[in-house]
Amino acid sequence: MAAVFNSISPAEFFYRNRHMAGFGNATLAVYSTVRELVENSLDACEDSGRLPFIIVDLVDESHDFVSVTVADNGTGIPYQHVSESFGKMLFGSKYDTRQKRGTFGLGATMAVLYGQITTEHAVEVHTQTGTSGGHAYRLLIDIEHNVPIVESDSTLDRDGPGTTVTIHIKGDLKRAQDRILEYLRMTTIVTPHAKVLLRINRIATATLGRWTEQLPSVPVVSKPHPRAADLEMLKRLIAENKQKSVRSILVESFQQVGDHTAARLLRHAALDSRKVGWSLSREEISRLSAALKSFDGFARPDGSCLSPVGRDSFLTSVKSVFPVSFCSYGRRGPSEWEGNPFVVEGVLASGDSVDESDVPVLYRFANKVPLLYDASDDVFMKVLKKIDWSKYCVRGARQVYVFVHLSSTRIPYRAAGKQSIALVPEIEAEALTLLRGLARELGKSARELGHRGRSVKKMHEFAKSFRLIAKFGASLAESDIPPTERLISGLFEGSDNGRVD
Amino acid sequence: MAAVFNSISPAEFFYRNRHMAGFGNATLAVYSTVRELVENSLDACEDSGRLPFIIVDLVDESHDFVSVTVADNGTGIPYQHVSESFGKMLFGSKYDTRQKRGTFGLGATMAVLYGQITTEHAVEVHTQTGTSGGHAYRLLIDIEHNVPIVESDSTLDRDGPGTTVTIHIKGDLKRAQDRILEYLRMTTIVTPHAKVLLRINRIATATLGRWTEQLPSVPVVSKPHPRAADLEMLKRLIAENKQKSVRSILVESFQQVGDHTAARLLRHAALDSRKVGWSLSREEISRLSAALKSFDGFARPDGSCLSPVGRDSFLTSVKSVFPVSFCSYGRRGPSEWEGNPFVVEGVLASGDSVDESDVPVLYRFANKVPLLYDASDDVFMKVLKKIDWSKYCVRGARQVYVFVHLSSTRIPYRAAGKQSIALVPEIEAEALTLLRGLARELGKSARELGHRGRSVKKMHEFAKSFRLIAKFGASLAESDIPPTERLISGLFEGSDNGRVD
Repeated sequence: MAAVFNSISPAEFFYRNRHMAGFGNATLAVYSTVRELVENSLDACEDSGRLPFIIVDLVDESHDFVSVTVADNGTGIPYQHVSESFGKMLFGSKYDTRQKRGTFGLGATMAVLYGQITTEHAVEVHTQTGTSGGHAYRLLIDIEHNVPIVESDSTLDRDGPGTTVTIHIKGDLKRAQDRILEYLRMTTIVTPHAKVLLRINRIATATLGRWTEQLPSVPVVSKPHPRAADLEMLKRLIAENKQKSVRSILVESFQQVGDHTAARLLRHAALDSRKVGWSLSREEISRLSAALKSFDGFARPDGSCLSPVGRDSFLTSVKSVFPVSFCSYGRRGPSEWEGNPFVVEGVLASGDSVDESDVPVLYRFANKVPLLYDASDDVFMKVLKKIDWSKYCVRGARQVYVFVHLSSTRIPYRAAGKQSIALVPEIEAEALTLLRGLARELGKSARELGHRGRSVKKMHEFAKSFRLIAKFGASLAESDIPPTERLISGLFEGSDNGRVD
Repeated sequence: MAAVFNSISPAEFFYRNRHMAGFGNATLAVYSTVRELVENSLDACEDSGRLPFIIVDLVDESHDFVSVTVADNGTGIPYQHVSESFGKMLFGSKYDTRQKRGTFGLGATMAVLYGQITTEHAVEVHTQTGTSGGHAYRLLIDIEHNVPIVESDSTLDRDGPGTTVTIHIKGDLKRAQDRILEYLRMTTIVTPHAKVLLRINRIATATLGRWTEQLPSVPVVSKPHPRAADLEMLKRLIAENKQKSVRSILVESFQQVGDHTAARLLRHAALDSRKVGWSLSREEISRLSAALKSFDGFARPDGSCLSPVGRDSFLTSVKSVFPVSFCSYGRRGPSEWEGNPFVVEGVLASGDSVDESDVPVLYRFANKVPLLYDASDDVFMKVLKKIDWSKYCVRGARQVYVFVHLSSTRIPYRAAGKQSIALVPEIEAEALTLLRGLARELGKSARELGHRGRSVKKMHEFAKSFRLIAKFGASLAESDIPPTERLISGLFEGSDNGRVD
């Protein structure tokens, strides 16, 4: 039997390979739908300059249908882009050199697609930008051709910009809800200025976040660093600037490349800097591509396209979500891996509950998204295990938590689940330095506590004998026992335990 | 800053999200490239009727470039389809209701794409079908537009049909090679009629397989079962047969639906069986779609589209790859999950090496592909743990292995890695019955061994005293000791230990 060959649309592909996009089963489907919509919402709020307020509404409907509604007060979606944003696979807001959460052009549309297949329902979108009025849409996807089908489109104002999306899917809400709650809780650790309200079957189940009113630094869109440019990118830049000299192409397209650096780079690549784009041979282009990697004269990439959580916000959020007594923040970078700038920041905290394990509990985050699964082979887990915590922890005394967040223009995920970060040496090195520093802080605090504990004990012993002496002296002098307590408590000034019993 | 919206090609998408397709890092990249090419090769051999012979050639080249070559003696790729098969994402041989290995239209092209990005090399393809002569190609992908760029195309005959593909990628061969060897070893367990030769840096590292000359049953392409049809599929079938009556559409499009069943189904759906495709309203179509799920009059799906390994081949391959003394095969099905037929088969084996754990070692397979990772949440692992093995195993005496293979027209993968199977109740139930049966076999053999051991011991004791009696009698009779050995060995007839010392 000869095989028949044909081509399929991206929508068709993901429809057949749902598991690839996190829609492998009824539980995952609900979780992933919430996740994709919430991450889109938070990205949409990033630019609005307002404090994000996200409402997640989950309702169990008849025959295991679940309706997932996520509302935000973000920038809204421009009228002309709504239908494609939700009804066309691999369509989205431009992919640029800048920290963001979602996967370009997949997430939300995948949820719409899954909902359509499993429940026949159209996605409902109600959005309004600052400039345009509000619009309400009902959309389906023509899966075979990967184009949106607009069922209805009406003008409907909202009080201010923002987007509300409702998707009906076949799913298992009961099994998914704990996971969703955990995900939202962790989300507010790295997006502490966001307020998230979770409603399940119309009952307010949790109100999370807004641990701080402080807005994070908005990541600035920046040009790519030359070391991040592979041959593919370079070819495109040259094709788009056929008429320009290779020198000005370099200066205009990349960060950290001025006229001087460009000239040195071109000498390094043995190319005439006056050559124009169209005249470059394939061989010359790949020579230039190789030179971008081997040239050592570039300044490290600019970190302004990143948006770490920051000391105050990170400490505040951890204290707000976990019962901790000791808390310390650290940060490394901006550093670079393959031309991608990155920052690693972390909080080490310890509570009063008893510690069962000899390694701290690890919470991982990447570009403000919590990573809840596949921890075992993650770079941060590896680093955590490299440290001999027994040296720092008061073993068995305190539960220790470590929160690590990687900000980068590109997260090197290990595999499709997007839940675990690859062992990139540069990231590993910075993370190790970060955690070692935090561990030392913990050790210091532990010693202090221990020390203080001991001195308090001493003073108690002393107080006892002092009373005895007083009593003995009094009986010798056949007088009343003198008032010792004031004297004793005087001795205890400065210690954090004034009372003595 | 207002976001800029745009659309990207599938090639562009997967280029940006390599990790999704298993190309997250330099080690995975080599492993995945081998895997995708080998699975395509084995699928191509399936129809050829020849015994597959696959050569995997891995060479470390300068600056961490690796060249991966996979050659097969399969059906070859028709001339007009070669360039798109390797140079266009989401293009492949038609997706039909039939057991096969690869993911449609992704694998090989993803490897080509990754190679092009990391090494600038074109993929080299040399293929020949039974009818056409041989052709040699060098191809690249226009990533921005997802179309192939043919660098060269020449006629070059091979001795017989087959395909040889060479991809140059940036990768870490040292780290990948153990994983690749394990993957190929396990592959020959479920494809025992295939011979696989692995060469690393031009040295023959391993020759695996061809454990049997017996060809497996070739899976027959069959129509989908009505219960497997979702609304999307139904809509398309109706659109393709506008002029036909809904009754004949059902009979012609689905298996297990004759005129009689179709009539009953349509009554169940309250639809007039003479209505023609174009006249069906959207509401009527979704009513029909719902009826396909709720109607209980369908025969279970036909299993001829499946190709299990089979008793003889499975037992032979396990014995060939593992040092085992006891071996037992079991099989369940064809059964059904959501209209997809499936067969679960397994081999339980025990070797003489000592067993460390109280649960057998589990090896999982799906559609003749070994699943090497994410075992923890897999349906087979769950079933394995449900069984109290201490009841069956001679604890601490023998290493026990369990090999389980799921054949189905659709494998319900849990997540993107395609390494772990979801907890589908129907599959779980069949797997449990299968393993229980195999466990009982193991128990029986264990008891027999124990019993036989004891009886042999008894006879040895008896033989000793018999000799003493003979000796004693002889000395009494002052005669020579009579020849006892023949008599004794006579007693041992039937036992598996005739000799007595």
